[in-house]
Amino acid sequence: MRYAVVGAGAIGGYYGAKLAYSGQEVHFLSHSDYQYVKERGFQVDSCDGSFHLPRVNVYQHAEDMPQCDVVIVGLKTINNHLLPQLLTPLLHQHTAVVLIQNGIGVEADVQQMFPGVQLIAGLAFICSAKTEPGRVNHQCYGSINLGNYSCRDEALFAQILADFNAAGVTAASVPYAEARWKKAVWNMPFNGMTVALDTQTDLLLKNPATRALIREQMMEVIGAAQALGVSALTEEFADKMIAMTDAMTPYSPSMKLDYDFHRPMEIHYLYTRPIELAAEAGFAMPRLKMLEAELRFKSEHKK
Amino acid sequence: MRYAVVGAGAIGGYYGAKLAYSGQEVHFLSHSDYQYVKERGFQVDSCDGSFHLPRVNVYQHAEDMPQCDVVIVGLKTINNHLLPQLLTPLLHQHTAVVLIQNGIGVEADVQQMFPGVQLIAGLAFICSAKTEPGRVNHQCYGSINLGNYSCRDEALFAQILADFNAAGVTAASVPYAEARWKKAVWNMPFNGMTVALDTQTDLLLKNPATRALIREQMMEVIGAAQALGVSALTEEFADKMIAMTDAMTPYSPSMKLDYDFHRPMEIHYLYTRPIELAAEAGFAMPRLKMLEAELRFKSEHKK
Repeated sequence: MRYAVVGAGAIGGYYGAKLAYSGQEVHFLSHSDYQYVKERGFQVDSCDGSFHLPRVNVYQHAEDMPQCDVVIVGLKTINNHLLPQLLTPLLHQHTAVVLIQNGIGVEADVQQMFPGVQLIAGLAFICSAKTEPGRVNHQCYGSINLGNYSCRDEALFAQILADFNAAGVTAASVPYAEARWKKAVWNMPFNGMTVALDTQTDLLLKNPATRALIREQMMEVIGAAQALGVSALTEEFADKMIAMTDAMTPYSPSMKLDYDFHRPMEIHYLYTRPIELAAEAGFAMPRLKMLEAELRFKSEHKK
Repeated sequence: MRYAVVGAGAIGGYYGAKLAYSGQEVHFLSHSDYQYVKERGFQVDSCDGSFHLPRVNVYQHAEDMPQCDVVIVGLKTINNHLLPQLLTPLLHQHTAVVLIQNGIGVEADVQQMFPGVQLIAGLAFICSAKTEPGRVNHQCYGSINLGNYSCRDEALFAQILADFNAAGVTAASVPYAEARWKKAVWNMPFNGMTVALDTQTDLLLKNPATRALIREQMMEVIGAAQALGVSALTEEFADKMIAMTDAMTPYSPSMKLDYDFHRPMEIHYLYTRPIELAAEAGFAMPRLKMLEAELRFKSEHKK
């Protein structure tokens, strides 16, 4: 098995490094950190045990990389317009692409770019951050769920799961659409609302008005999922997500970090696409569409 | 005719001063400015011609005031819990109370406090500000519409209109509910959204996402009005309000000024009450209810 990692940041860098450290052949595409990683390797500071990769197969240009059996995409979705250029050199007839990305509709759009490629959704449950060039800080969690979108080769899908688990990454197979929408039940309210009100998860749940709003927004996501045929999501799941968030330490979701650090926000796949898909199925999401508009405004008028 | 003004700030102070300057007997209740106004009178700096009232009937306590035929209330609605104490000494059997206040449901609630009193809604179209003690700066506009809520004495209602017009204040009679809801079509989207996104009217309309949202919010208000039997409001009115706002200079509505100056916001009558009334009539206002939640959060977590 030959792995490639496109986007070796906090997420892709961590999972790729774990695979490499376990002995897999992994090729990293790294635009900004190329020179540093080539010279000094890759460091993972981890709650599960830190480690260093002294020699890394790192490339500055996709054209220089070999074709791989599995490509892990760890880019932010705002860079997905680059995928035709970045992925094409890495693909052979049977390559599987694992999209460890946020949102709804990512796989459908990537499939349009690469009609024959086998796509797998990667849902990461991890707190990690790229702290400096060639260095990732893994704070907690770290599992990954894989949802099969269009992977015909079941043996390959099983092998990827096995490779992750052998590398010390808890990996499980989950139903694709259900997994994506379940994550959206949490992501859509909390990512946007922490930006809209410039706050953290705990304060949103402490205020009775925004707590009720968050639950209404979760119910919009659940309603959208049901309208699109994902029947496993029920009202209890909203209560479960709120209870889980009550138990978490105050948290800034990825979009809030993007906003705080003046990086582009993933509005398209976290809001625009799921809202569009729901509308096509006849389901309106007025609160999340309003939140999308507020985020569009805030991305134009930075604090 | 004997007039009283309760709340002699930017609005009540202006209209009361105009009436007094035209020769009407006007008694002002002024808590904070009492000493200053008693000694030095009241100054109106106005685009229509400035004037000074050297001697003003000003009082610190409602108990010291005479009963009046007309009481003009210029308080912010956040102070309406004080009305039983402030109004009772001023009322006789036939007093009319003109509520120059923002929002929906104000008259119904004041009527509950004073079941027999004759109530008139005052809808002010004015830009004015209290700049220092005993001094109001009237920048532009200045007309007032009166909507008859429960005034049985038609001659009194007509006399108030006539007195305003004789004082140089353009005053007209308007249908009560229609006038309140028409004002809400503008007020509910723009007051809250300028606070939620910390911006002004022009930027909200410049961004395509928030422009569309503002129109959707206006349609929620129009839908609520229709559900409550106010049939005069149609979709064209939303377009008219947007076109009017496009033509305005960048504007901070009163709630935005309250927010900026760390004063309490009129969330109850601008949002909670109309949303409740619409819900009782079976009409949901999800976007404005979300905005209400955001405002509740922001009033708790000031910038």
